[in-house]
Amino acid sequence: MRYHQETEFDIEKAAKFLELPPSRLSEIIEKGNLRQNWDEYNSIYRFEGHAPQLEDGTVLIDKHGSFELVRGFPKIKRAMLLEPALKKNFNDIDSVVVEEKMNGYNVRVVDYRGQLIAFTRSGHVCPYSTERVQNFLKRDFFMDHPDIVVYGEMAGPDNPYVQKKVYGIESLDFFVFDMRYKNTGEPLNVGQRRKLSEEYGFNQVRLLGEFNVPQASEKIMEIIRELGEKGHEGVVIKDPEMVLQPIKYTCSQSNCSDLEQAFRFYNEAGRDYLFSRVVREGFQSYEWSESEEEFRERCRRLGESILSPMKGTITQVQSGERISDDFRIRVSEENVIYRFKAYLERFGLYVIIGTPERIGEDYSVEIRKINKSTNDKTLAMLEGQLWS
Amino acid sequence: MRYHQETEFDIEKAAKFLELPPSRLSEIIEKGNLRQNWDEYNSIYRFEGHAPQLEDGTVLIDKHGSFELVRGFPKIKRAMLLEPALKKNFNDIDSVVVEEKMNGYNVRVVDYRGQLIAFTRSGHVCPYSTERVQNFLKRDFFMDHPDIVVYGEMAGPDNPYVQKKVYGIESLDFFVFDMRYKNTGEPLNVGQRRKLSEEYGFNQVRLLGEFNVPQASEKIMEIIRELGEKGHEGVVIKDPEMVLQPIKYTCSQSNCSDLEQAFRFYNEAGRDYLFSRVVREGFQSYEWSESEEEFRERCRRLGESILSPMKGTITQVQSGERISDDFRIRVSEENVIYRFKAYLERFGLYVIIGTPERIGEDYSVEIRKINKSTNDKTLAMLEGQLWS
Repeated sequence: MRYHQETEFDIEKAAKFLELPPSRLSEIIEKGNLRQNWDEYNSIYRFEGHAPQLEDGTVLIDKHGSFELVRGFPKIKRAMLLEPALKKNFNDIDSVVVEEKMNGYNVRVVDYRGQLIAFTRSGHVCPYSTERVQNFLKRDFFMDHPDIVVYGEMAGPDNPYVQKKVYGIESLDFFVFDMRYKNTGEPLNVGQRRKLSEEYGFNQVRLLGEFNVPQASEKIMEIIRELGEKGHEGVVIKDPEMVLQPIKYTCSQSNCSDLEQAFRFYNEAGRDYLFSRVVREGFQSYEWSESEEEFRERCRRLGESILSPMKGTITQVQSGERISDDFRIRVSEENVIYRFKAYLERFGLYVIIGTPERIGEDYSVEIRKINKSTNDKTLAMLEGQLWS
Repeated sequence: MRYHQETEFDIEKAAKFLELPPSRLSEIIEKGNLRQNWDEYNSIYRFEGHAPQLEDGTVLIDKHGSFELVRGFPKIKRAMLLEPALKKNFNDIDSVVVEEKMNGYNVRVVDYRGQLIAFTRSGHVCPYSTERVQNFLKRDFFMDHPDIVVYGEMAGPDNPYVQKKVYGIESLDFFVFDMRYKNTGEPLNVGQRRKLSEEYGFNQVRLLGEFNVPQASEKIMEIIRELGEKGHEGVVIKDPEMVLQPIKYTCSQSNCSDLEQAFRFYNEAGRDYLFSRVVREGFQSYEWSESEEEFRERCRRLGESILSPMKGTITQVQSGERISDDFRIRVSEENVIYRFKAYLERFGLYVIIGTPERIGEDYSVEIRKINKSTNDKTLAMLEGQLWS
């Protein structure tokens, strides 16, 4: 790996590129809202907090005095009630494209000094995703289209964030769902993006159909029912031209599966995380004309998704074990394991690495994230402490 | 009603009484952490936020230059796991007294210039509770024991906060659960308090038993099961001498009933309110060796307590109605209705008062609290807006 030491960029030039007064840019830097990446990626800077006009996680790359922006993936808003949301938001177009929303983690890929690199949603260069993406995407696309950023989902069981076996992926894979131009963040339309992906042999998220707006909600409900039964997450509904903002909508089973994962670590689970998922269930149960039996089943599913993992955690801690969030990663170069560990530790996580095993040419290793807060709280309750 | 205008107290004297340096007291006043009551109670001041050594809601009364403290009711901590909590916290005593925790609102009563007044938990003089308490408690107790503050639960259907019919109360009643000395906040022991209450004909919370500590958790679980089935709230477990801190423990049905009430106004419902109730269910479901069927029923109950009221709200707003929190109060003097309305409005609530009806000697009136946030959010979703 090469290390580049030119860490200071020219504020005047950068400000001009960003169309900001230099004093404003200096202020952003002083507040810590534009941070330099560590290690070999030190000519990469990420915006944190609210940068003017820029999506969260937007990245500024200093290319020896000229600059490039890799825009953060724009937050996709959620329909609570499908039918009115479609009518209101896609009123001006004839049809919408429905693509699958996969349950993994969101990654952006660009070519950086002759090698692909993968940014997480927050704009960090993830060593694991970066190593993996070399196998998933070919560089020729990025050489032919140096002005395009590829956005996709890293999905599959060997996943540091969301381990899903439902996609039939053996280890991990990358599915393109968006392409946008550097600097402006302008998206390619759905047709162009799917065509380019196909040409270059990229995996893509599934295209589930194109529907006339008046019929779309009924069709999407059918799709959501099927996806839900298979344990998939949901859909993103798009203007084919990508002019209007896309909308997401998810399955009840996926909401509940999120809660089930989160509530093993109940004391770390965000209050807002719980609240938002509960509210989605409320709106879905209103919109879907459910039988009494289906409604009871939804209630039970929601309750169980919270109580069952908590009960499991208490039982486990009582038995003397400590709970942890365990996952595996698979890499070609062993040193990526240790770089990924260091990366997680920078976020304040406490991780334990297992012994790497050979699987063909690769190394597979177990990583355990220890959730101190839930362990400590559970132990305290078991020892008879009071809640508050 | 008499109005007293001597609103300024002597800081030197008050500081000496509170055992604080005068500069510290001045600082507390400047920060707005010691606030004068409005209306005729302007020689009453309440501590807001953290006052040194004083419970939240503690009240300072200026009696023409001498002072008196009516201490706030101390927060009772909650057992998450009954058995270990009892063992740890009551390790040093032989037996515990179990009293019913009723579901109403917490009120403190003292004699003030020849009339009983009722403070809410936060130390406000509540005009409704003050008027009502004249019927519930006789003044002779307060004349015989001017140094004692009576703490109790205002329960029953004619209730601005928690309307419960499960106690068989026609309108509203007051149930003593604590007596403490002014200034120090020292409690009377359980026996003294129950005896005094009986002597003066006060209603008391039910005494459910006194149990040896090793057997207590089993007994209390039985009690909780019975209370739960009847829709009652739970118990407070006390050291008979009131030296060790009491502990509370509640029924699953009561947790769920809280959620059911809160989630009609889902957008006003506190995230912490939801989280804490959900966590209680998790611990209870662990500790109570439930059958699979009982666990399913608990999950369903929890889910339904959230989804059912939400569904109701969306349906109601969709039909063109607006949701509101409706309750009735019953008073002897009609002007109390308007004073209570003004009182609620001081807290920023928007309330609509119905037409008072005569019931015997009393007036009964409906009060509607309008919850703008949930109405607006629900309407927005029905109109197709996106969540965020």
